[in-house]
Amino acid sequence: MIDFHYWPTPNGWKVAILLEELGLPYRVRMVNIGEGDQFAPEFLAISPNARMPAILDHDVAGPPVPVFESGAILLYLAEKTGRFLPQDQLGRKEAVEWLFWQTGNQGPMAGQHSHFFNYAPETERRQGYGFERYRRETIRCLDVLERRLQGRDWLAGEAYSIADMMCFPWALIMKAMEIPLDRHPSVTDWRARVKARPAVRRGVALGKESRPSRPHDDKARRILFRQE
Amino acid sequence: MIDFHYWPTPNGWKVAILLEELGLPYRVRMVNIGEGDQFAPEFLAISPNARMPAILDHDVAGPPVPVFESGAILLYLAEKTGRFLPQDQLGRKEAVEWLFWQTGNQGPMAGQHSHFFNYAPETERRQGYGFERYRRETIRCLDVLERRLQGRDWLAGEAYSIADMMCFPWALIMKAMEIPLDRHPSVTDWRARVKARPAVRRGVALGKESRPSRPHDDKARRILFRQE
Repeated sequence: MIDFHYWPTPNGWKVAILLEELGLPYRVRMVNIGEGDQFAPEFLAISPNARMPAILDHDVAGPPVPVFESGAILLYLAEKTGRFLPQDQLGRKEAVEWLFWQTGNQGPMAGQHSHFFNYAPETERRQGYGFERYRRETIRCLDVLERRLQGRDWLAGEAYSIADMMCFPWALIMKAMEIPLDRHPSVTDWRARVKARPAVRRGVALGKESRPSRPHDDKARRILFRQE
Repeated sequence: MIDFHYWPTPNGWKVAILLEELGLPYRVRMVNIGEGDQFAPEFLAISPNARMPAILDHDVAGPPVPVFESGAILLYLAEKTGRFLPQDQLGRKEAVEWLFWQTGNQGPMAGQHSHFFNYAPETERRQGYGFERYRRETIRCLDVLERRLQGRDWLAGEAYSIADMMCFPWALIMKAMEIPLDRHPSVTDWRARVKARPAVRRGVALGKESRPSRPHDDKARRILFRQE
């Protein structure tokens, strides 16, 4: 059994999608980041960065293994099961490159854009230097994905892999952040290919009834400010 | 032989340090990011994200292997040589976790802080919402490192590893960004331990004569705006 510490956000979806693809038994431990669950000592013991997603893998010889950081979790589970990671050295290297690329580029830039789009104080929200900067950076990341996906179905190797699961969730929500994908036809096609998979739909739907309907809620914003 | 596409910045130093630690033969290909070298088509073929560091490894069976993203490069070289990566599964998992943590947290947050500290337009430089936000986030990352390093000499496993090489460069330059380390004694001690290594000193010194003395130079800033 795997304990899956989760809240329904793009970073949480990455791991939800892989768990659904693998069909591994898991139980969800909701981490309500609007209530500050991520700062609880028992959660910090698993995820010292105070962020979900994280897992605690009981299905090992010896004590349960905690893993934090979505990229590390995807790599851990893919290596554990031997699935969704190219078997050849070159393909594996590509998957690892795109896991790191997402972590250092698309993730933080779209994450900062989300902050300035949804959560920043009114004087900074949807206007001003930070908003414009991270919107531009988010589009730059789409440009990088677009070039990569021209003439390819998947980001790494020859097949759907954890690299696609890593980059898909933040591409999924672009329209909700008012970034149209018109100028990114290869991203659009790839996004549709990934989205059509039943396991992906189940992953993205996981726990969605818990998601707050009002992201600008003052209390949630105050706590998220500490968390982001 | 390894071609090392490099410019003397904290992200470049990560790989410079590992190459020096390994003693592998390499030749430096300077990527002058203030001149826009990172947008040259021949560089994009190696590093599709238009960022250094990147490597092209000629010492392989078959065509040379390009690797981009500093975390992917460190993991690639550590696995290739069997060095500076814990051999046991748990230690290896920890090293991978801290590689991803650096990539998604310390790296982008200190990188954004550097932007607002050194490069942003005057109305945003060293003042305002973005400056305060990324300064606070950078300190939060130091807090995470501090908790991790309490009672430990190294970030992952039992010995100095690529996890330390990954996180050291951005800790090294904190003082230059006017973030004192007084409240982070374990980070301070670890930083000194890493800095004392001759290979680390050689890595950080690599190409430093090329570094521009005026980071606010208008042309460099204009190009860096596209690059960051």
